[in-house]
Amino acid sequence: MCENVNGKVNEKIISDVNLDVNSDMNLYGNLDKRSPVGVFDSGVGGLTVVREIMRQLPNEMMVYFGDTARVPYGSKSKKTIIKYSRQIINFLKTKNVKAIVVACNTASALALDEIKDEIDIPIIGVVKPGAKMAATYSKNKRVGVIATEATINSDMYTDVIRSYDKDIKVFGKACPLFVPLVEEGWTKDPVTYEVARRYLKDMKEKDIDTLVLGCTHYPLLRKLVGEVMGDKVTLVNPAYETAVSLGKMLEKYGLLSDNDNSYKGGMYEFYVSDAATKFKDFANSILPFRIDNIDEISIEKY
Amino acid sequence: MCENVNGKVNEKIISDVNLDVNSDMNLYGNLDKRSPVGVFDSGVGGLTVVREIMRQLPNEMMVYFGDTARVPYGSKSKKTIIKYSRQIINFLKTKNVKAIVVACNTASALALDEIKDEIDIPIIGVVKPGAKMAATYSKNKRVGVIATEATINSDMYTDVIRSYDKDIKVFGKACPLFVPLVEEGWTKDPVTYEVARRYLKDMKEKDIDTLVLGCTHYPLLRKLVGEVMGDKVTLVNPAYETAVSLGKMLEKYGLLSDNDNSYKGGMYEFYVSDAATKFKDFANSILPFRIDNIDEISIEKY
Repeated sequence: MCENVNGKVNEKIISDVNLDVNSDMNLYGNLDKRSPVGVFDSGVGGLTVVREIMRQLPNEMMVYFGDTARVPYGSKSKKTIIKYSRQIINFLKTKNVKAIVVACNTASALALDEIKDEIDIPIIGVVKPGAKMAATYSKNKRVGVIATEATINSDMYTDVIRSYDKDIKVFGKACPLFVPLVEEGWTKDPVTYEVARRYLKDMKEKDIDTLVLGCTHYPLLRKLVGEVMGDKVTLVNPAYETAVSLGKMLEKYGLLSDNDNSYKGGMYEFYVSDAATKFKDFANSILPFRIDNIDEISIEKY
Repeated sequence: MCENVNGKVNEKIISDVNLDVNSDMNLYGNLDKRSPVGVFDSGVGGLTVVREIMRQLPNEMMVYFGDTARVPYGSKSKKTIIKYSRQIINFLKTKNVKAIVVACNTASALALDEIKDEIDIPIIGVVKPGAKMAATYSKNKRVGVIATEATINSDMYTDVIRSYDKDIKVFGKACPLFVPLVEEGWTKDPVTYEVARRYLKDMKEKDIDTLVLGCTHYPLLRKLVGEVMGDKVTLVNPAYETAVSLGKMLEKYGLLSDNDNSYKGGMYEFYVSDAATKFKDFANSILPFRIDNIDEISIEKY
C-alpha cells in the first residue's frame, strides 16, 4: 500500500482515523456532543486507555464498564468474546453514549469487525491505532507484537500492520504471565525481568525496531520491557494512540465535547460485573482522579 | 473437638465422610448406583480430581463440566460463584448424576454451604477432605494452606481445620501466579522455583509441618513445592483425599457402581463452556485415558 516510511506515509496513516467506523459522515447527526464516551474492557486493563483519554481529552465525560466477572478474555473463543461485547455495548447504550472505545485488545481483535456494522454510533478499538503507529515508526520493516494468546492467534495486528505496508514482517508472541504479574504488583521485580527476558528472547533475535504493547496491562510494564529490548526498539502504546484517534474521530463527526476542561465530580462513571472493591483499588492506583462510585451490574441481562 | 492427634483421632476424622451431605441415609433411595458422578470446576484444574477418581474408583462413570468461559473463579465474589455453581449443578442434573463433586477449591469454599441444602443428591467438595487430612497429619499443630485469593480470604480451610482441633494454628497464603505458571507448562522451571520461594518464605518461617495444596492446579507443582518446603513438611493433596471421601460417601449411601472395573469408551463425558480444543490438550496431558469427545454448552441457560 505504501512504498516507504517517510513523512508522507505518516501523514496518510495518522489522518486515517476512520478505520473502525462507518464512513458516512452524516450518520451521527442525531448524537449529542455533551454525551459521554463509553469505554469497555474485560477488566481493569482498559483503565490505561481511560487514563490517556482523561489526559488528552479532558472535556470528555466517560462511562466505563469492566467485565470483572468474566475476565480474562485472552483465553476465550471468538464466539464468546463477540457475545460478551454485544452485551456490554447494549449496556453502554442505555447510558446514552455518543461513541464507544473497545479498550481491550482481545475484543478489538476478535469482535470489532463483526459488531461495528450492527450499531449506530461511532466505535473504535485499540488494535488499529496501535498497528498504524507501528507501521509508521518501523524503519527496518520488522515489527514485534506482544499480547494475549487470543490476540496473537487472531493475527489481527499482523493483518492491520501489513495492510499499511505489505513489506513489513510482523513477529507475534503471547505473554500470558504478564497480566498476573502486573496484577500482583511485580512491575519492577527480578522475576518479571526474567519472565520478560524469556518471552522476548526470540523477539530480540528477530532484529525488530518497533514493539507493540498489545495488551492494555502491558503499558504498566513499559519501563521493564524497554530495558529488556534496549534503546534501539521503539515501544508503541496502543492506549496512547487510541486516545489520539478518539479525539480525531470525535472531531470529524462534530462530537467533541464543548464542556469546559476543568475536572468536575460526576464526569466519570464506572461499572463492573463483579468485585467492585478490588477494581476501585486498582483504578485509584493508576488514574489521576480519585474514583469513589463504582456500581456492580448483571451484564448477562443485556 | 479432639485433644490429640493419635490413632483414635485419625479414625474419627477419616470415618467422618459426611461433612458435606445431608445426614439422612434414606434420602437417596431413588438414585441409581449405575448413574455417573458429576464433577465440576472453573476450568481444567478439576481434572486432577477426575484423575484421582479414575484411579481409585475405576467402576464409576463421570460427567465433567469445566467452566472455561468464566475461569478463573479465584478472583470473583461469593455471590457470583454461588450463581455459577447453581447453573452448573442444574446442568449436571440433566445428565442424571447420582452425586456431585465440587472439584474447585474456590467454589467448595464459597458456594457449597449455601447450595448443599438446595439439592436432593449427595454433594462433596474438595476443601473438607483436604482440611480433615491436614488436621490429622499435623503433629506440631501448625498447618499452612496455599490457594487462590478467594479461597484464602474465605478462611474456609482455617475454619474447617480448626473445627477438628481448635489448637491448630493455620497460616494461609494466596499464590495467584501458580495457576498461570502451571498453564504455561513451567512446572519445573527456575522462574517457578523463584516465585515459590518468594510465596513460601513466610510459610517456612512459621515452622509448619503440614501444607495443604488448596487449589486444584497445585498438585502439578507438588514436587517443586515439596523441594522448596523441605522433607519435614507433609503436603496434603485435596484431590486425592476427595476421591477417598467420595468412595466412602457412595458406599455409605449404597451408591457405589457395580459396573466391572475395566475402562470402556463412553464412561466419561466432558463438557465445557468455551474453547474445547485447549481443554482437550490439557486433559490429554494429565489423564490416564485419551479423551476425544468434549462438548461445548451454553451454561448461562441453566
